[in-house]
Amino acid sequence: MNFTKYISKHIEPALKHDLPGAWMPVVPEGCVRLSSGFPDASLVPVTELKQSVTRLLNEENDLPLHYVGSPKVDQLHTWLIKRMNERNIHIKPEELLVTSGACQAIDLIARILMDEETYIVVESPTYMEALEIFQNYTDRILTVPVDQDGLRTEELEEMLAGRTRNHQPLPKVLYTIPTFQNPTGTTLSIERRKHLLALAETYEFLIMEDDAYGELHFEAPVQTLKSMDEDGRVFYIGSLSKVVAPGMRVGWIATDEAWIETLFRFKKDLDHPFAQSVMATYLEGVDWSKHLENLQTLYQSKCNTMLEALSVQMPKTVTWTRPDGGYFVWLTIQEADTAALLEKATDTGVSYIPGKYFYLEQEDGLTNLRLSFSAADENEIVEGVRRLAVCMSQL
Amino acid sequence: MNFTKYISKHIEPALKHDLPGAWMPVVPEGCVRLSSGFPDASLVPVTELKQSVTRLLNEENDLPLHYVGSPKVDQLHTWLIKRMNERNIHIKPEELLVTSGACQAIDLIARILMDEETYIVVESPTYMEALEIFQNYTDRILTVPVDQDGLRTEELEEMLAGRTRNHQPLPKVLYTIPTFQNPTGTTLSIERRKHLLALAETYEFLIMEDDAYGELHFEAPVQTLKSMDEDGRVFYIGSLSKVVAPGMRVGWIATDEAWIETLFRFKKDLDHPFAQSVMATYLEGVDWSKHLENLQTLYQSKCNTMLEALSVQMPKTVTWTRPDGGYFVWLTIQEADTAALLEKATDTGVSYIPGKYFYLEQEDGLTNLRLSFSAADENEIVEGVRRLAVCMSQL
Repeated sequence: MNFTKYISKHIEPALKHDLPGAWMPVVPEGCVRLSSGFPDASLVPVTELKQSVTRLLNEENDLPLHYVGSPKVDQLHTWLIKRMNERNIHIKPEELLVTSGACQAIDLIARILMDEETYIVVESPTYMEALEIFQNYTDRILTVPVDQDGLRTEELEEMLAGRTRNHQPLPKVLYTIPTFQNPTGTTLSIERRKHLLALAETYEFLIMEDDAYGELHFEAPVQTLKSMDEDGRVFYIGSLSKVVAPGMRVGWIATDEAWIETLFRFKKDLDHPFAQSVMATYLEGVDWSKHLENLQTLYQSKCNTMLEALSVQMPKTVTWTRPDGGYFVWLTIQEADTAALLEKATDTGVSYIPGKYFYLEQEDGLTNLRLSFSAADENEIVEGVRRLAVCMSQL
Repeated sequence: MNFTKYISKHIEPALKHDLPGAWMPVVPEGCVRLSSGFPDASLVPVTELKQSVTRLLNEENDLPLHYVGSPKVDQLHTWLIKRMNERNIHIKPEELLVTSGACQAIDLIARILMDEETYIVVESPTYMEALEIFQNYTDRILTVPVDQDGLRTEELEEMLAGRTRNHQPLPKVLYTIPTFQNPTGTTLSIERRKHLLALAETYEFLIMEDDAYGELHFEAPVQTLKSMDEDGRVFYIGSLSKVVAPGMRVGWIATDEAWIETLFRFKKDLDHPFAQSVMATYLEGVDWSKHLENLQTLYQSKCNTMLEALSVQMPKTVTWTRPDGGYFVWLTIQEADTAALLEKATDTGVSYIPGKYFYLEQEDGLTNLRLSFSAADENEIVEGVRRLAVCMSQL
């Protein structure tokens, strides 16, 4: 898309702020931030990263500060491949590209697949930043609702069959967060995963699988779409933001070699040797299973605290999802306008993200809101939910 | 450009390697690397950056490791604005966007300005990575030669007048490295700068001013195009790669606010809080004038050593540019094919970049080559030039 086309669209002035969702109201001091999708501060390995930098620069001197040269950049690539293989995604080195977080991964894939003629399917609701990225490329965005078992693949099939009958163009790609979805916290069932992959084969579309939360499972790990993909249709998108630290900006794409070559060609921020070498140095010193176990245990406990508090506090008019992992719980409130309600909530001392930001048609999300249990501590979660319940009971 | 259009082009398999120019021959062990555009290892502030990380994380704990939150990210932005103002580029905070190096800056600007219908003018020769970026968007690339005083603006004017007479489309944008150009090391004269800006106004095109080397002047600083731009036509592209460390990936764009808003909208790797906070912490502790003076003194000395060695060693059939700053000297060798000669040169123990890689039409650069005096030390420079002269004298 060029400037002329873009400028004709509405530019939200606040979009200057470098943050997904920064156009939402500022959260006042003293508020419990159940809006924040940040990792728990105690789980960000500050000391280990500090030590990693010292160790790295003592060992390698200026190497990680040049364009190329540090073996640690390759080591990060190797570590990610190994981890993919442990998770039953069997890929070769040529099938993985390190990116600056999942957002750049999504944008790069959109860039090579999409133009203004392209149809894409997204979940409804979906990750707001991904929606914004796709809207930079095309207005032809189709939506399929999500329920407790994830994307409703029967509805997807009806839509695809209907478009075929009516000689309407079919989508080229579908974007999904199948595991511990942002914003709903729900997970696509195994039956639906199979159904989705079968539909992709029948109707010949590609799949972007955003797995930013997949390692944060409270029970058994969930099988990824990519590990079930016999047809080479899945672009797997990974991220270390939710499991190490978002500020390091390390994500990746796993897909077929020819695609990786093309993605690389369009990735023009080059490598980030300093950040990537520091991450590699950190990873070589960490017991990953144990690290994940810590994360899983703490987030599960915080999630349970939130669910328990919701049960105790919320009026009967409110329902919510029960996630098996990730960061988020998704609330539905009868006859509410959660965007209008937000000011009252922050006055009462709690913040959330209004549901409308996760929908292509924002009015579809007026009765929903997203709560994060990731960043606040357990006392704050209880207090935040209590404050939110006060607002709800006054509706 | 979408995949279908792209895949129809030739993909060089070696493009997988994350390095501008990685498709060139591997430089053997023991070779003097006059090919390398890296900064001098002794000038990369390893110790200071190590201390900066420790200081930053001691002070701010996990803040710089989240998506947002560290005041240091804003501090970097403020530092860059201040530096721009000191260099007579008077901009407001809304007129600067931090990028992941100059390459991302060039790509972002191309992305909002260009599509496959867009005509662009580049210098001949020009920075190879920029050329590759533009080729991702359009095949309509026009070239204007560079001489000792930079871009030949008279030839540009003839071209623009001719296209106007012949009712051919005019270029929308011109890309230039006016100061200590890569690869030629030449600098656009003040008269030509004025002429170029006047032409931009008359023929209504925009200018991308890549100033990656501008701070590395051996004599008085050179006036930037941006500081002379009364008409808001210049996108200024800055970088800390050549003056601090490329591995940190810090660059920026300075231009009008409306453009910055649009550029931000398409910048989907988000901020890089860790790398940017570390850079800000480093910069707050450094005496920038003194730091630059060190760089200028050392690079000038190395440049003089190279020029002196060339005078002493080279046969009469070889001529070269005399840069007033930057990293590069550009050689012209009568009746040579510098690409074919490279294997012999590396066998003799010296590497360079063959001229052809800097040209749209590669055959235009067969008699040229680029030498860098930035990375090798003075003894290596003398020895490298001697080895190269041996090859030349055997032609």
